Amino acid sequence: MSTSRLAQLLRLYLVTDPQALRGRTLTDVVLQAVQGGVTCVQLREKTASTRDFVALACALTEVLKPLGVPLVINDRLDVALACGAQGVHLGQSDMPVALARQLLPPEVFIGWSVETPDDVQRAAHLPVDYLGVSPVFATPTKTDTATPWGLEGLCQVRAMTPLPLVAIGGIHLGNAAEVLTAGADGLAVVSAICSADDPCLAAQALRTCVNAFL
Amino acid sequence: MSTSRLAQLLRLYLVTDPQALRGRTLTDVVLQAVQGGVTCVQLREKTASTRDFVALACALTEVLKPLGVPLVINDRLDVALACGAQGVHLGQSDMPVALARQLLPPEVFIGWSVETPDDVQRAAHLPVDYLGVSPVFATPTKTDTATPWGLEGLCQVRAMTPLPLVAIGGIHLGNAAEVLTAGADGLAVVSAICSADDPCLAAQALRTCVNAFL
Repeated sequence: MSTSRLAQLLRLYLVTDPQALRGRTLTDVVLQAVQGGVTCVQLREKTASTRDFVALACALTEVLKPLGVPLVINDRLDVALACGAQGVHLGQSDMPVALARQLLPPEVFIGWSVETPDDVQRAAHLPVDYLGVSPVFATPTKTDTATPWGLEGLCQVRAMTPLPLVAIGGIHLGNAAEVLTAGADGLAVVSAICSADDPCLAAQALRTCVNAFL
Repeated sequence: MSTSRLAQLLRLYLVTDPQALRGRTLTDVVLQAVQGGVTCVQLREKTASTRDFVALACALTEVLKPLGVPLVINDRLDVALACGAQGVHLGQSDMPVALARQLLPPEVFIGWSVETPDDVQRAAHLPVDYLGVSPVFATPTKTDTATPWGLEGLCQVRAMTPLPLVAIGGIHLGNAAEVLTAGADGLAVVSAICSADDPCLAAQALRTCVNAFL
């Protein structure tokens, strides 16, 4: 896939959080979010059994594939292979990128979280397809993250790499425009959609903002 | 691999437990256990990050491969593929066996935990290479397990299947002989070796017992 095509697919990137669903099912929230304009879904499960994770990933694949929305699996290549995911997202404590590239079919794209300028420099020599700039702002969703990049840091990353950039961490409608201005190709959101009263409307508002910029 | 060759490799089957090492490194304990006669090592990590799990699996592969001792990865096919493990062990909450078989190279063997007679019957129609009869006795190592099979249950499983059987759960030198008499091809032990004052001596004693029976 070309870099520009991938950048398009990453425009509004939903990261799931089973804790943020307010009692709704994950599949329902994802479907509403996609109807509202989410362009990519990352399934992130940190406590589910492998069996449950695979079942959920397969269920989401069935929903998303006909809609042309890529499913990205966080961390777990076994789950990605099992459900035929289009992408994998790796953090600094996940499988090394070069090893993941060897194990995945060539058409599966790999995203990688960058937390420091050193990470961004290393990415130039790694088989990664996009970068997750993490976190842009401080966020209660993930508490194990590094120092926030801020908008200046995001500008700095933009200047360092031609890879598509997905900004994650504390992003919502109120700061989406400035994150895109700073150079992000896509916005990753968790609670701004997962916990919204109406995930479809929340996604619509964010997508309108993204469309105005790109 | 033939069933009888696999049964031989499973004779004394060490399952690792990072909580049971009494401050020693996993690699050291495994190496001592293998020197004492362990024939197969299952790496089981339930809290490690994927990066740490892969690093540990690769380190054990380097130690075990030259010794001809197979490494089996518990649950995680991504880790098994990354380190080139010889086997994968799947429990009832892990990836479905048929799916795992599709994702693994044909030479990688698959073990499957059976907790009920229904599981044993289902195994006849699944691509599994050996069964873990789990638990034979009640054990504090795993608290999420089903009702113990007991020696009678193990006899019952033996009568139901020609697959190699590895007995696990509360096995130590004091009951090893009766577990083998009941029909196990191999003994799986966790704390009887991992927590032993001398893992090499503990493995030696168990191996002598196994050799007398098989």
